Amino acid sequence: MADIQLYDATLRDGMGGGGLSLTAEEKVRVVHALDELGVQMVEAGFPASNPKEQELFSLLAGERLGSSEIVAFGMTRRRDVAAAEDEGLRILAESFAPVCTLVGKASVLHVEKVVRASREENLEMIADSVAFLVAAGKRVLLDAEHFFDGFALDAGYALDCLRAAADAGAERVVLCDTNGGSLPPQIRTAFAVVREALPGTPLGIHTHDDSGCAVANTLAAVEAGATQVQGTVNGIGERTGNANLITIAADLQLKMGCQVLPPERLARLTETAHFVDELLNRSPDPAQPYVGKHAFAHKAGLHAAGVRTDSQTFEHVDPDLVGNDRDVLISELSGRSTIAEKAQQAGIASDAELAQRIVERVKELEHRGFQFEAADGSFELLMRKEAGEYEPLFRLESWRVLVEKRADGKVDTEATIKIWLGGERYVRTAEGNGPVNALDNALRDAIGEIHPHLRDITLVNFKVRILDEAKGTGAVTRVLIDASDGHDVWGSIGVSENVIAASWDALVDSLEHGMQPGRRPAGGAGAGGGATDASSAGSPGRV
Amino acid sequence: MADIQLYDATLRDGMGGGGLSLTAEEKVRVVHALDELGVQMVEAGFPASNPKEQELFSLLAGERLGSSEIVAFGMTRRRDVAAAEDEGLRILAESFAPVCTLVGKASVLHVEKVVRASREENLEMIADSVAFLVAAGKRVLLDAEHFFDGFALDAGYALDCLRAAADAGAERVVLCDTNGGSLPPQIRTAFAVVREALPGTPLGIHTHDDSGCAVANTLAAVEAGATQVQGTVNGIGERTGNANLITIAADLQLKMGCQVLPPERLARLTETAHFVDELLNRSPDPAQPYVGKHAFAHKAGLHAAGVRTDSQTFEHVDPDLVGNDRDVLISELSGRSTIAEKAQQAGIASDAELAQRIVERVKELEHRGFQFEAADGSFELLMRKEAGEYEPLFRLESWRVLVEKRADGKVDTEATIKIWLGGERYVRTAEGNGPVNALDNALRDAIGEIHPHLRDITLVNFKVRILDEAKGTGAVTRVLIDASDGHDVWGSIGVSENVIAASWDALVDSLEHGMQPGRRPAGGAGAGGGATDASSAGSPGRV
Repeated sequence: MADIQLYDATLRDGMGGGGLSLTAEEKVRVVHALDELGVQMVEAGFPASNPKEQELFSLLAGERLGSSEIVAFGMTRRRDVAAAEDEGLRILAESFAPVCTLVGKASVLHVEKVVRASREENLEMIADSVAFLVAAGKRVLLDAEHFFDGFALDAGYALDCLRAAADAGAERVVLCDTNGGSLPPQIRTAFAVVREALPGTPLGIHTHDDSGCAVANTLAAVEAGATQVQGTVNGIGERTGNANLITIAADLQLKMGCQVLPPERLARLTETAHFVDELLNRSPDPAQPYVGKHAFAHKAGLHAAGVRTDSQTFEHVDPDLVGNDRDVLISELSGRSTIAEKAQQAGIASDAELAQRIVERVKELEHRGFQFEAADGSFELLMRKEAGEYEPLFRLESWRVLVEKRADGKVDTEATIKIWLGGERYVRTAEGNGPVNALDNALRDAIGEIHPHLRDITLVNFKVRILDEAKGTGAVTRVLIDASDGHDVWGSIGVSENVIAASWDALVDSLEHGMQPGRRPAGGAGAGGGATDASSAGSPGRV
Repeated sequence: MADIQLYDATLRDGMGGGGLSLTAEEKVRVVHALDELGVQMVEAGFPASNPKEQELFSLLAGERLGSSEIVAFGMTRRRDVAAAEDEGLRILAESFAPVCTLVGKASVLHVEKVVRASREENLEMIADSVAFLVAAGKRVLLDAEHFFDGFALDAGYALDCLRAAADAGAERVVLCDTNGGSLPPQIRTAFAVVREALPGTPLGIHTHDDSGCAVANTLAAVEAGATQVQGTVNGIGERTGNANLITIAADLQLKMGCQVLPPERLARLTETAHFVDELLNRSPDPAQPYVGKHAFAHKAGLHAAGVRTDSQTFEHVDPDLVGNDRDVLISELSGRSTIAEKAQQAGIASDAELAQRIVERVKELEHRGFQFEAADGSFELLMRKEAGEYEPLFRLESWRVLVEKRADGKVDTEATIKIWLGGERYVRTAEGNGPVNALDNALRDAIGEIHPHLRDITLVNFKVRILDEAKGTGAVTRVLIDASDGHDVWGSIGVSENVIAASWDALVDSLEHGMQPGRRPAGGAGAGGGATDASSAGSPGRV
């Protein structure tokens, strides 16, 4: 199939997702990550909607990019103003960006009810605006907003809108499913009609996931003749999100025979996806197709054995192709070969005897209620302990937590720890928002001077469950903590009858794993090195 | 289009998702929620893969369901054993479940490399197993594993596998995209061939989301003749998850003209989706199609104005149809008519003004991080408080919790409470396995003589999550407690920066709700009323 152009809308449309924001510098880093991935067009935003956007465009003007062209985004002219007098169009014309995308209405409903223009006026707004920017030397794309809904209401008018842009010199018209309600058959039908009505005009597709079909709608459009796909990294965007450009790139290249990225760049998909999530302070979705942590996770037993025999049996694609890893979930059924693989990944030299010891230890702990699937940090520590490669951060003597709801309604929390470190005894007391936070504060107070890197580790998630199923010892409490150093995220676990004791164990594992000298270096080359400001993660560890 | 059957696989296939677990009692509650939604078939698991599954089936055998049939899941017989001698098939035959789903291989690759059987042997395994269960009086479905991959390798053999099941009396064959790698065109092509090869055999579809197309693949199958769709609530499942049955139900009913649920039940979609997430201690995905908190969130300005003018301009469907809301702060409880209904159920006389007060209060609390979907007990108390029908069990002066990990490794926990009851001040100290248990013990010690029925109330579950999204007050901790009196199970909630303070609030709600004179009689209607043997839940409240 033909070459398909990837058009990234993360920095503009994607930022409509709740609670997302990036600084101008962070956006530049996203642009570089997309450029290194090989994305052909990157929509940066409107060059002047606020000072941050202005700063972004002035930064971008000085950047050198290899694969990506920067696209400036704006709207067709206002109803009552000539194109040359329209402030927005003037700013686009003066921007350094070689390509401009204009959003224009393609649905009678919106023309009449939202813009309150006549049908003819709207066509003129599209034509004038495109012509103005073309005359200013820009290559112009029309994002035909609400195209599919408009096509259902009045196909002829929707086509007229596209034709107005094409006739005025737009290099491409992009059919947008703005409300995200379409299903693949509607996309196919509309594209068939558009191709016949506008032969020779290059087409694009822009979808949202309100029906859970954004990716499939995009693929259906490509089958039906679209040669540009618009989407966002990880599908971020308002409501249910935009089409996920990461998934689409992999589907197109690995399953539909399209050339979208140089093959060696495709292996940057996972890194790029996680990098953008980290910058946005989002936890990467472990279930995300192709790039999620669990995307190639196999339960031990039949599946894991099958994968080792022939990966095709239980894998739809080779995880290496998208830069992901095969992950075998640790569970009670785990075999020695799985353990050996995990040890190797962690850089621990293992033999059959060590693997067997680890299996035994895992079984024993799982019987007590541990579960290492979401606690990779604790599991790695466990392997190091069994391998004799473990160095404790400190030696605990005792700790104590006091939580008091006073008569005035205020809650006080205070923790005291007594630990030994380098032959010295440290006694520290700290307050906190909750018991774990207070223990964390006291511990950091005690060892932070000797281990200043602790400062970089923040607790980003905390979950507690009671386990009735751990019949071995009656009901126990399982605490899972996710920690991050701004690059990697790792999980740790604590299990105890007492929620505070379980939290303490998970907390210590979190910090010890983060401080292990043998831990693989942060993020590695390029995109993964998102030196995010972890302190912006709200108030982690405030438990 | 024809009626399409919904088949839920949450309790079996769905539980393959990393870190998910439910107790037998919780699974019963999920079954009731699915039953109330109107799902036709609910796959409960294999009746004997471990003691928990055995317990689940013995609990389910005593439940009365309206819409749902319970399905027992198993495998075709082993290669070297006659069907009548196969332990797994015997257990299925003896189960109370009227329907059995058998998973069988439909790909030569798996037959040869994983099962290591001959092609003929595999066909016999399918035929024998189906025939055995049919003879035992079961209705049998074949889940044809790896069907689409197998179809690509050797379509004739894949069809033979389906035919073996159909000829042996299976009521339906289900085509499974087990590795999740298919795209809609492959699904369409395969279904066209299957329909021609097996005219009259009812077909089903079972997909996974590895290509990001699980929903679209399911819809493509329905277009091509499938009359049963298998999936899981919220798409949980191993790797990238199963097809999301919530999205599929809405797409089929609202966009493809299929009858899958009674229209008034469709409005339970949002509630059901959130309920299952809460039980699993997962944060509901705000971007989930149809039911996510942001699914119908509109940005201020043009969009919001457009929606007020004509909701069709910016909404693909009316959120009411799926029980969701246009507000950013949403909940199924936030409509006045819903509130009136809930009040009536709880025996509280309500009018429009009271309902409005409750709506306001719920919104305010949700802004602080409360969520009442899995906290029916707290919600009922809230309604009683607003209605002036609330009597506190006691008046709190203060409490204090001390948890100490001593130098000898032992953990001590002690709680002191100071409360007023009937004009008297009670000061009580108790130990416990954890802080909540100690507070619970101290409280029961103080008020147990006056309220002897407290003895009957046990805490059966306890979940904690940090909420970064509750921007109103920064990060907070949300505690959910389930309590039971041996008949009913109810949920309560506490939200605070401090996990112990949040636990205390939830604990008090648990007990107060259990002691309300107006509480509906044991075993009442609905999902909450799973008459489970709460005392079997191990050692509740040992946190």
